[in-house]
Amino acid sequence: MGLVVQKYGGSSVADAEGIKRVARRIVDTRKAGHEVVVVVSAMGDTTDELIELAEQVTPIPSGREFDMLLTAGERISMALLAMAIKTLGFDAQSFTGSQAGVITDATHNKARIIDVTPGRIRSALDEGNVAIVAGFQGVSQVSKDITTLGRGGSDTTAVALAAALGAEVCEIYTDVDGVFTADPRVVKKARKIDWIAFEDMLELASSGSKVLLDRCVEYARRYNIPIHVRSSFSGLPGTIVSNDNPNKPEGGEMEQAIISGVAHDTSEAKITVVGVPDKPGEAARIFRAIADAEVNIDMVVQNVSATSTGLTDITFTLPKTEGQKAIDALNRVQDGIGYESLRYDDAIGKISLVGAGMRSNPGVTATFFEALSEAGVNIELISTSEIRISVVTRAEDVPEAVRAVHTAFGLDSDTDEAVVYGGTGR
Amino acid sequence: MGLVVQKYGGSSVADAEGIKRVARRIVDTRKAGHEVVVVVSAMGDTTDELIELAEQVTPIPSGREFDMLLTAGERISMALLAMAIKTLGFDAQSFTGSQAGVITDATHNKARIIDVTPGRIRSALDEGNVAIVAGFQGVSQVSKDITTLGRGGSDTTAVALAAALGAEVCEIYTDVDGVFTADPRVVKKARKIDWIAFEDMLELASSGSKVLLDRCVEYARRYNIPIHVRSSFSGLPGTIVSNDNPNKPEGGEMEQAIISGVAHDTSEAKITVVGVPDKPGEAARIFRAIADAEVNIDMVVQNVSATSTGLTDITFTLPKTEGQKAIDALNRVQDGIGYESLRYDDAIGKISLVGAGMRSNPGVTATFFEALSEAGVNIELISTSEIRISVVTRAEDVPEAVRAVHTAFGLDSDTDEAVVYGGTGR
Repeated sequence: MGLVVQKYGGSSVADAEGIKRVARRIVDTRKAGHEVVVVVSAMGDTTDELIELAEQVTPIPSGREFDMLLTAGERISMALLAMAIKTLGFDAQSFTGSQAGVITDATHNKARIIDVTPGRIRSALDEGNVAIVAGFQGVSQVSKDITTLGRGGSDTTAVALAAALGAEVCEIYTDVDGVFTADPRVVKKARKIDWIAFEDMLELASSGSKVLLDRCVEYARRYNIPIHVRSSFSGLPGTIVSNDNPNKPEGGEMEQAIISGVAHDTSEAKITVVGVPDKPGEAARIFRAIADAEVNIDMVVQNVSATSTGLTDITFTLPKTEGQKAIDALNRVQDGIGYESLRYDDAIGKISLVGAGMRSNPGVTATFFEALSEAGVNIELISTSEIRISVVTRAEDVPEAVRAVHTAFGLDSDTDEAVVYGGTGR
Repeated sequence: MGLVVQKYGGSSVADAEGIKRVARRIVDTRKAGHEVVVVVSAMGDTTDELIELAEQVTPIPSGREFDMLLTAGERISMALLAMAIKTLGFDAQSFTGSQAGVITDATHNKARIIDVTPGRIRSALDEGNVAIVAGFQGVSQVSKDITTLGRGGSDTTAVALAAALGAEVCEIYTDVDGVFTADPRVVKKARKIDWIAFEDMLELASSGSKVLLDRCVEYARRYNIPIHVRSSFSGLPGTIVSNDNPNKPEGGEMEQAIISGVAHDTSEAKITVVGVPDKPGEAARIFRAIADAEVNIDMVVQNVSATSTGLTDITFTLPKTEGQKAIDALNRVQDGIGYESLRYDDAIGKISLVGAGMRSNPGVTATFFEALSEAGVNIELISTSEIRISVVTRAEDVPEAVRAVHTAFGLDSDTDEAVVYGGTGR
């Protein structure tokens, strides 16, 4: 009967009814004898409304003030949730990120947690309270300014508190029943995954699965905090993300590839730097320019140099939202590097197959490409890791490609599931 | 070219346009060479919306959580205002009550300021910033919990910061042009007052004038901080509240009564305790019972005892909202005190005439009663102070009574003014 950290997303607390439902779920956990720390996001569309207000006031909001503004959202939801729990006869106290001891660096809008000092949370628990903590926010170590953690920040807050408090498990409540073998909006026969290893979840997350973000999974893996992703609506058991499968299969299957799922992502664009002189250091200069512009890139492919010209092409993918920044950065260094031209393409999609034992089971790659080929999907880029194969295709081919791969690996369930994805990713 | 504290109410920052208008006004003050500290309320109806949300979640919100909830409002307005100022090319930083060093006691929902330690504000000013501070909120000294200051809290925040920082003046921006000789919604010919002494303003405020609350005026008087009440829309000079009239009249008039204005209040009720034994200590027991119920009372009148019965009546006025609490408290002590019955009447109104030199000018009282009599207004209670006469009448007589008194004392302006009162009193 240890400590449980529960995180509820914006869609779970979208209105007063949602807040009351979440309060009942928390109280049930408390009644079962657990100490409970709750991390909560802003209600429904609050964050979007605040962003819109900022846009009405200024074209370029200051980072510090933008964080001050956005953190009002969690303040509202956490106070209301604490009130709702008290109405059910249990003690509860709400805490801002700062009060909860979430210490970050000073990078406004996407701060990183550098320490968690949950003294007030521990005291509140010792006094019999449920502790409600604002997700997504912290306070900078030196300047004591309010910061926000960026995308996935509330999940990361929950995992960080779970680690600092030595929690048994970190439950991430969302509006879906768990992690699926593919996006159920695309693949009707997608199955809920009962257990998945941290590594596989990391690859799924970085390949476009939106249920958990890689940042939060990375944190949980580092501190070995099991995550339980589950629905705040159904209350059913969801997906456990941890080191050890609690229901490990008995013998026999240990050397077989275990496919976790198929992820896809249509939020990226592709930039090809055409005609790069094929000599040492050129690629480095390109990616230094991109890095200096603070653009995160994903896949990178360099074609074989055409020996007759001494020129090569370098292609990489990146979030569409950072496309303009990357192109500006590359334009500035064109003369220095001497490449010929840039090609930008944002009508692409990425399909990734994730699973353990893939590299040592050559049949996996073959089956993957065959499935795509039979579905008539053309492959533009390929990238692989120990437990993942990703390909880039035309964006319009993505749904068909995901379904084909899902079926080819025997992931289809026997029944059509009816679930809807959502959430703000905050 | 000293330090100016400016306070903007919710109606001044009701939307993005309002915030931008306020930002321009702040920047104008900055350009004139002043250091500027701004205290801001929540936008428009934000507070009411948050209260409604709380009501949807729980019938009795916890004080601590209610404060946590409400303080989200100022967080939004102050961050947006800081952004808007930066867009105009000036540096600005926003601060919560806690960050600004507003230290209070632990009485949630109506905390009192016990200290102001504005170190971060001073530093921000030294670095060339406009400092934006959340009104209405602070942090409790011992438990470090977020508190709110209750009605008039933002004005009090502004005056307290002005005192702690040694400001030249505290400008209270509102949606009217200043303090008027009567409520312009009732008296069309009400005139704006250019200057009024702290004492007179205190009497006006406690007699029903809603432009400034007595709490804020009391604070300003104690630290001798001049208040300038003015419109954030027109930008015209408003009303100066201070110790010394900057335009003191030359000779001659010094001993004459100077009438400041006529205030009225229809938010009170009247309770009469009928048949109280006329012996020492009975009144004390009644008012101890009222005080223990934390009910604030206003006027108190005891009728002359009817010697034949040895019984007397005690009447007092109090906010209507506290009527039930007071009656409950009195019912509980009826057996101990032995009074006969209670009479409750909430259809009353109070009209007050405020001005210096009133007591020593008997003509003032006479003129006051004559005016009411000619207007056919019946007087139910009378109470006076050194600089005020108040009477209680039927509520429906109030508008006519105010106009009659205003005219009788020569306060009518030559032109009809067109102004509208408003604001949340926060």
